[in-house]
Amino acid sequence: MSSLTATNKGAATREAILDQAYGIACSAGLEGLSIGPLATAVGMSKSGVFAHFGSREDLQLAVLDKAGERFVGFVLLPALKQPRGVVRLRAIVDAWFDWSRHTDGGCVLLGAVSEYDDRPGALRDWVVEQQKRWRQVLAQAVQLCIDAGELDPDTDTEQLAFEIYGLALIVHHDAGLFGFDAAVARGRRAFERLFRSYADADAVPSLA
Amino acid sequence: MSSLTATNKGAATREAILDQAYGIACSAGLEGLSIGPLATAVGMSKSGVFAHFGSREDLQLAVLDKAGERFVGFVLLPALKQPRGVVRLRAIVDAWFDWSRHTDGGCVLLGAVSEYDDRPGALRDWVVEQQKRWRQVLAQAVQLCIDAGELDPDTDTEQLAFEIYGLALIVHHDAGLFGFDAAVARGRRAFERLFRSYADADAVPSLA
Repeated sequence: MSSLTATNKGAATREAILDQAYGIACSAGLEGLSIGPLATAVGMSKSGVFAHFGSREDLQLAVLDKAGERFVGFVLLPALKQPRGVVRLRAIVDAWFDWSRHTDGGCVLLGAVSEYDDRPGALRDWVVEQQKRWRQVLAQAVQLCIDAGELDPDTDTEQLAFEIYGLALIVHHDAGLFGFDAAVARGRRAFERLFRSYADADAVPSLA
Repeated sequence: MSSLTATNKGAATREAILDQAYGIACSAGLEGLSIGPLATAVGMSKSGVFAHFGSREDLQLAVLDKAGERFVGFVLLPALKQPRGVVRLRAIVDAWFDWSRHTDGGCVLLGAVSEYDDRPGALRDWVVEQQKRWRQVLAQAVQLCIDAGELDPDTDTEQLAFEIYGLALIVHHDAGLFGFDAAVARGRRAFERLFRSYADADAVPSLA
């Protein structure tokens, strides 16, 4: 076996372990990840799994990386094909709402916030960084609405990003309790009202 | 020992077990509750604990009851002393935001939604019922704003209750990540804007 083939095989095995671990974390959380059952699930020994991830925490961090990539690939990248402004912001919000269905209510990233926000360490640091970056992405999408003349330059982009995040959370919350479609319908109405309330409020000073 | 004293002692022991179990559930979730470590923590045998709670699920349901009572006692009851309308609604929202600090980010009720929304059974039934009741309480508090003439009779009380719930979720979310005070400040601004946007939007048709 050439060293290149060995590297490819190693990468494929790592991917297979990660896929399995991601699936477990979706339902049981990152704290529900144990190397033993994971090794059994992928048909390897525990030491075989440890050869790819030096520790349980390394594995948890790798699952978070994968969750982050999937989230960005599902929610953000398709929206970037939309024109800048409210059309793109709405595309992000719609895909984000849809993410609740895609993940069947078990978002690893959201679960990780509950699991690690009060536990200092590498996992918490990862979570805080990812949450900050995502909030910046949202604030930037709001800024593009300002640049497009759809919102006033005085709009507090971080405040609106915060409120949009709240809508994603309540859609996610309600989807698992009362059904996805009803939750998304309410979420969409709320987003349109929220955006309009910012646009209308901002329109007042320009009339003065 | 008279039978009355025995009953009192039994009730006190049950309370002590529940208090301990509630504390565990705040940080580890209801699924993190095991009879063994709980019995050790309260200095009893496992069978001693089982004498008070027939099963682990019975114990989990009793912890949920306790969590529900504490939540209502902290968030709703003080607000009922406020006059009906936006003053009372704001008092509920403020206390709800404060609940995130009170529970140090570990709300058993919110955790139970994540844990059980996709697992049919008595625990999910309890959670769905409690969530429905709380949403009704919020919608009723909105209705009182309508009755007080602060919102238009056409206001969709369930929709506004849904949006207010989203604010409580994002405050709770941000409090653990970025600090309680900043999260609550944003939450309060968002609530005032949200309420005003409903009040203003409702004012438009009355001008026509």
